[in-house]
Amino acid sequence: MSVMLTSDILLADLDAHGILRLTLNDQGRRNALSEAMLTTLRVAFEQASADPAVRVIVLAATGPAFCAGHDLKEMTAGRASDDGGKTYFAHVMSLCASVMQGIVTCSKPVIAEVRGVATAAGCQLVASCDLAIAADTAQFSTPGVHIGLFCSTPMVALSRSVASKHAMEMLLTGDMVSATRAAEIGLVNRVVVPDALHDATMQIALKIASKSSMTLATGKRAYYAQREMTLGDAYDYASGVMVENMLAQDAHEGISAFIEKRKPEWQDA
Amino acid sequence: MSVMLTSDILLADLDAHGILRLTLNDQGRRNALSEAMLTTLRVAFEQASADPAVRVIVLAATGPAFCAGHDLKEMTAGRASDDGGKTYFAHVMSLCASVMQGIVTCSKPVIAEVRGVATAAGCQLVASCDLAIAADTAQFSTPGVHIGLFCSTPMVALSRSVASKHAMEMLLTGDMVSATRAAEIGLVNRVVVPDALHDATMQIALKIASKSSMTLATGKRAYYAQREMTLGDAYDYASGVMVENMLAQDAHEGISAFIEKRKPEWQDA
Amino acid sequence: MSVMLTSDILLADLDAHGILRLTLNDQGRRNALSEAMLTTLRVAFEQASADPAVRVIVLAATGPAFCAGHDLKEMTAGRASDDGGKTYFAHVMSLCASVMQGIVTCSKPVIAEVRGVATAAGCQLVASCDLAIAADTAQFSTPGVHIGLFCSTPMVALSRSVASKHAMEMLLTGDMVSATRAAEIGLVNRVVVPDALHDATMQIALKIASKSSMTLATGKRAYYAQREMTLGDAYDYASGVMVENMLAQDAHEGISAFIEKRKPEWQDA
Repeated sequence: MSVMLTSDILLADLDAHGILRLTLNDQGRRNALSEAMLTTLRVAFEQASADPAVRVIVLAATGPAFCAGHDLKEMTAGRASDDGGKTYFAHVMSLCASVMQGIVTCSKPVIAEVRGVATAAGCQLVASCDLAIAADTAQFSTPGVHIGLFCSTPMVALSRSVASKHAMEMLLTGDMVSATRAAEIGLVNRVVVPDALHDATMQIALKIASKSSMTLATGKRAYYAQREMTLGDAYDYASGVMVENMLAQDAHEGISAFIEKRKPEWQDA
Repeated sequence: MSVMLTSDILLADLDAHGILRLTLNDQGRRNALSEAMLTTLRVAFEQASADPAVRVIVLAATGPAFCAGHDLKEMTAGRASDDGGKTYFAHVMSLCASVMQGIVTCSKPVIAEVRGVATAAGCQLVASCDLAIAADTAQFSTPGVHIGLFCSTPMVALSRSVASKHAMEMLLTGDMVSATRAAEIGLVNRVVVPDALHDATMQIALKIASKSSMTLATGKRAYYAQREMTLGDAYDYASGVMVENMLAQDAHEGISAFIEKRKPEWQDA
Repeated sequence: MSVMLTSDILLADLDAHGILRLTLNDQGRRNALSEAMLTTLRVAFEQASADPAVRVIVLAATGPAFCAGHDLKEMTAGRASDDGGKTYFAHVMSLCASVMQGIVTCSKPVIAEVRGVATAAGCQLVASCDLAIAADTAQFSTPGVHIGLFCSTPMVALSRSVASKHAMEMLLTGDMVSATRAAEIGLVNRVVVPDALHDATMQIALKIASKSSMTLATGKRAYYAQREMTLGDAYDYASGVMVENMLAQDAHEGISAFIEKRKPEWQDA
């Protein structure tokens, strides 16, 4: 049994199937990405990435807001320093970027389960996850333009998730996008009624948790790596990944089981 | 009050909200991108980009054609020179590419308002704008294959707007795409009935015009820059942009107004 | 008349319009990409690319499976060698990558006509084609996770065809995607009833076959080249392509025919 992080603002629950549910739980701040929340999230994803007991991660939230983005009161307090907050802002932005990239580099698949409003860096969290399931009560926006602060870091994730005109409409208007529209543009995978959200997420999480963790980790890392290469480089790289994957015990077992029409038994199960 | 370009073939109208309406008005040539039109557009976007009185740009057109692409009669006349037109074609293509990139680098958001047929480099104009609103009478195509001249420059913008198979279908068949289909594939943001087109465009233009111009310029520049970077580089770059944006007066004002639940007053409003 | 490859496992039929129909025909293996099939496909696309009699290629299949991906029994047999199969796997992966890239670099447009199930590298085949038409009986998946072997090479093509969350859902779950859903996410261009599949493919193939082959080859090559460049580089490159295209006989003829309102006659027709 792995030792999991415990925190009041980020609940962690690991079930018997290896599904780690991380739940943003700072409703008083609408689950804002305060320094404390960012630091806690960073540690949680690092731990989960390294923990063999964790097979899949679900990122959820309590309360009406999934996540309201940066903690503007905390950011504003940072202005009091001698440099007007420059050093502090750089620290927070760097920390936030490391959390978002930590989701991408986490060796376990990460599924956002979104029931409420995901705004600014909260929308970025959803865009950064590998998959996202939303209740029809969920809403998404990058509203920085309303407060003179363009959502420039959220758009790094957003522009890699949806078509350019859809990203630009969200960024330039700050308008809320419904869950249905979010599914149409590819920001989330599917939309369900609120009562079905937990089951919908668990269904996909359980399916993925039944796979070889080695295989999932290999594939996820390769996915994000090859995406930034030219086609030729991507094929050279991915071909090498396939060869190594073929030589691993879980592929040997999985292919044998397939040919023998039996259920595979993964090394790490 | 800013001095705006005036031209018979490109009407320019700046309203009290800072919305500059540029209207292609060369109906006899179906608003083709003649040398004169390209030069006029280039100057117009350069002026608008630098003009603090301009907050948002709407690119519209008179007549049944939004824009028919290059002026084929003018291009054909260019063949008469000693080199068969090579120098002239290179000049026109370079000029056209500078217009399209001038829309992308323009510091003000640019919204295409499309009522009619946008073909070839006319379709590229729409793809190059940040946003596009279409009437259900609008149609889009890259029909160069019909005349032996593949739409190779239009596809630079098109392939950065829509999925690969959708772009390839337009490019290889030259077929017209309806406004509804254009919205489905992400080439335009939304489709409305013709009578509602002006209002639909103005609604979104007014919304964007109410934001801080500094913030919009910062964000638009950062959007197109980060899109061409690796994820890690994009986050490093965008984090720096966020820090600078936080230190600007409009973010100070915007965040303070948000916390104090009042309307912000932008420096450049 | 060109000499076309003939093979029991890959049928080749060139019609009077220059449409080459390549039909996967190894139903006993569900049209798997065995070494023999891969080698045959590579030669077929190389020949077709170089053959002036071929104007468009349709890639189809006999039987209920379009293509089941790699031949797992053959791969497993490769484990018997001294290095556990490493050299053999590297050979097969390299061969497969060359087939997929051979579709992209083939000078003729390639249209997948999918009636059955396209899985793993079979789904990659579809993603690698320029266009794809599917019957509503078609299904698509990247099911490598079921057997411990992530679809790392299929995802190179898949991730360049559909939005990130859609690709990741297919890759992480291995779930089958219906033809209708495949059309929604951009993996195929359109879906028709099975009885209409052949006609739907031929309609688009004939349309493309009526264009100048020089123009199609120029445009297809430029499309995939510019897609990997920055916006500025892409415009410089594509502008050069346009100038060369303008100077070619087929553009001279095509533009003249357009201005004179007559049907163009291509040099290679």
